[in-house]
Order: sequence, then C-alpha cells, then structure tokens
Amino acid sequence: MEKPQAVVFDVFGTLVDWYSSIAAHSVRIAARQGVDLDGGQLAKLWREQYAPSLATVISGQRPWGTFDDLHRDSLPGVLDALGVTLDERSREELVAGWRRLAPWPEVPRALARLRERLPVATLSNGQVRLLVDLTRSAGLTFDAVLSAELFGTYKPDRAVYLGAARLLECEPERVMLIACHGWDLAGAREAGLSTGYVARPWEWGPDSPPVEPPEADLAGADLDTLVDKLVSVPAG
Amino acid sequence: MEKPQAVVFDVFGTLVDWYSSIAAHSVRIAARQGVDLDGGQLAKLWREQYAPSLATVISGQRPWGTFDDLHRDSLPGVLDALGVTLDERSREELVAGWRRLAPWPEVPRALARLRERLPVATLSNGQVRLLVDLTRSAGLTFDAVLSAELFGTYKPDRAVYLGAARLLECEPERVMLIACHGWDLAGAREAGLSTGYVARPWEWGPDSPPVEPPEADLAGADLDTLVDKLVSVPAG
Repeated sequence: MEKPQAVVFDVFGTLVDWYSSIAAHSVRIAARQGVDLDGGQLAKLWREQYAPSLATVISGQRPWGTFDDLHRDSLPGVLDALGVTLDERSREELVAGWRRLAPWPEVPRALARLRERLPVATLSNGQVRLLVDLTRSAGLTFDAVLSAELFGTYKPDRAVYLGAARLLECEPERVMLIACHGWDLAGAREAGLSTGYVARPWEWGPDSPPVEPPEADLAGADLDTLVDKLVSVPAG
Repeated sequence: MEKPQAVVFDVFGTLVDWYSSIAAHSVRIAARQGVDLDGGQLAKLWREQYAPSLATVISGQRPWGTFDDLHRDSLPGVLDALGVTLDERSREELVAGWRRLAPWPEVPRALARLRERLPVATLSNGQVRLLVDLTRSAGLTFDAVLSAELFGTYKPDRAVYLGAARLLECEPERVMLIACHGWDLAGAREAGLSTGYVARPWEWGPDSPPVEPPEADLAGADLDTLVDKLVSVPAG
C-alpha cells in the first residue's frame, strides 16, 4: 500500500449514525400526527431499501435520482409494512431527516486531525446539497464535497471512485476510501484505490447483526484508531 | 432582490491576492537560477493572458484545460516579453504558485462569519484540486468546492452559474455570486443569480488602474462590509 495523498469518506454509517437520528426523528414526526411508531424499526426497514434502490439505477432500470428521490420512493412501502399512515408533509419531513444525522462521537475530532495532514473529501451516494446540509449540521469540515451525483451513477460503480481520484488529481492508488461497508471498500479496491475500514458495530441499532471485518489495507475500531494508523504509514 | 439561500465566491482576485503572491514567488524562483526578474510585471503580464485563454475554450477553439494547462501554455510568451529564460522545473513551480496565494486580510474572518448563517461555496474557473490546495493553504473553509471544471466550461458561460445553483438545490435567484470583476457579475446576473460586488482596488498591484464599480445587487468596500449588508437583507 502506498501512502495516501488524499482521503475520501463514505458518510452514511461511516461518519454519521443514521439509525439513532432517523429513529428519534420519525417518532417525533409521527407523534405530531398522533401516530405511535417504532422509530428504530422504521429506520432499519427504510435503510434496507437503500441497496435495492441503488441497484435499479446502476443497472439502468431507472434514471439517476437524488437521495431524496430514492427515500421518497421507498418510504410508502416502509410505512405500509409498519401499518402506519402519515400525511405528505410528515413524509417530506422524514425524507429531509437524512440531512440532519448526528456524527459518531469520535468523528469530528478525528476528521479534523486527519485534515491537518491530508486533503479530505466526502465520497457519498448522497447528492452534493444533502452533504452540504449534513456536514454543516454535524459540524464536519471537508476540503471538498464529492458525491456520486457529480458522475451520474452510484457507488460501487467504479466511475465514482475513479472520478474522485481524477478530481483530486491523484493516481487511484494514492487515494484512500474510508468506509464501514464491505461492498463500498470492495468497489474502491477494484477501482484501484486503497481502503480503510472503520468498524461500526452499532450501525443498525442495539440489535445490529455481527459484522465480519471486510478486506481492507487498514482497519480501526473507530476513526481515531484508523487515523493514527494512516498518518504513520511511511512515505513510499 | 430575494434573500440568498447560498453564496458562491469567485476566488482569484476576489478572495486571494494573486498579484503579491505570484510576484514574490516568481522573484524567489528566478533568483535560484541567478535570474533577476520584475515579479510584479510577470504577475500582471501572466494574468493578462487569462481572459484570452478562457475565450479560446468557451468559443470551442481549444478543449477544456485546467488552470495549470492554461498557465503553462501562456507562461513562455510572458517570459519572452520579459526577456527572461527559466528552466522547465522553475516554470512548473511558477505554475504551481497559483495554488498558494494569500487571502486578502479581512477574508478568513468575514467568510467564517457568513458561513455561520448560510452555505458558502467557491465558484471558480480553477479546477477542484487547485481550489482544494488553495483554500487549505489560505485557511479558508467552504461547505463545497464548486468549479467550472464540474461543468466542462468556464465562467462567464451561464452553464457554470446554473450548474452551481442546481447542485445547491436553489432557484438561481436565491444564489448570490460574490466577485470583484464586472464580467463575472454580469455573467451571473444574466443566468439569474443575485450579485455582490467586493472592491479590490489593489488587485493589479500598487499601479492598479482605477475600477468603475460594476452593477450589482449589493456592494462593499471589503468582504466584511458586504457580509454585513448581506445578512441584513430581509427575508422575502
């Protein structure tokens, strides 16, 4: 592995805790309509629709859409499964909730520490403006907000990873993707990037299934640990 | 004028002082080769090639190139005009100098103050990575680094201004471009954006020609003044 010259980050799950934030947000919104809701269940069912939604875009079955579009499309099925009805305004507020997710506790400081050494950017399937809102609300600072939107497809399409390396003017092998998902790390590796795995054992809430650590060049139990390892990689 | 929901910034001249930085940088580099150089003259002659370089891209005479490509192409003519010869390594270091320009004194604080209220992004003809390097070295923090590179053309092509509004998920009239150049403000206005003029009377060094203030929705003698006016625009 060559020493990275730039680092790009997956965002949802890796840097921010979507489960807790969406669970709490949905309970609040439903309560306003007098609806009692299992917020954690909603968060999980909704997020489970994410990979199938992306697949329909990557395969060409549907045109590219923003995160909002995908969340808006999959929400009615989730509410049906929970036996719950919410009006359109509440559904739109739920969709907008993906722009205000809390960071995992160690992330703001660890990210700032890495940024002192290397350029850092997002590389998310969320669209640019959603990432702008999310990073502002989470207090996370990047040198660039890169998104699959800029390339008209989604991770793990190699065009996204290679596009990011091109915009960062780096050879792919000199860019590291940091993520908590094996499919994302595998996509980056296949495109030639180096990979950093950060464990997020509670990504799916208190009943999260156990995760087998995926293949990666570096791994950390949290971002602090991973940043320590990354900055100590000797220069080629 | 509607209250802006996001602000995009021209960078070269508006936020950073290319004249002083390039003048000092070129004197240092030339001296290393034992060459005596009028750094201010080099900076001015080089920057004068900028608008004609862009015009050849916008008109389709040459394909899109990075800022480095354009600066690299125009540098030999500038050195010829000064009667100076520099080797390739020195010329490349001069080109790279456009990534390390000092901000105007009030900019870091005024920009941070505006960012507390509204999303802020670059909107420069410099490519993404050049802007990443420049904002890191100048200590400027943005919510997104937007560049003409993302749209394959240059300002004042309306595609750049409209592309920025689209990525920011704003109606064009709810995005303000802040710039010190009339041609840029005119391009933004024609694309439907609102405009903020910041005066940079010393952009071209101590012998800068006088500048007639261009048409703009708001104007300030510096960025602090402009930010004060901007944040006090009443919400529509």
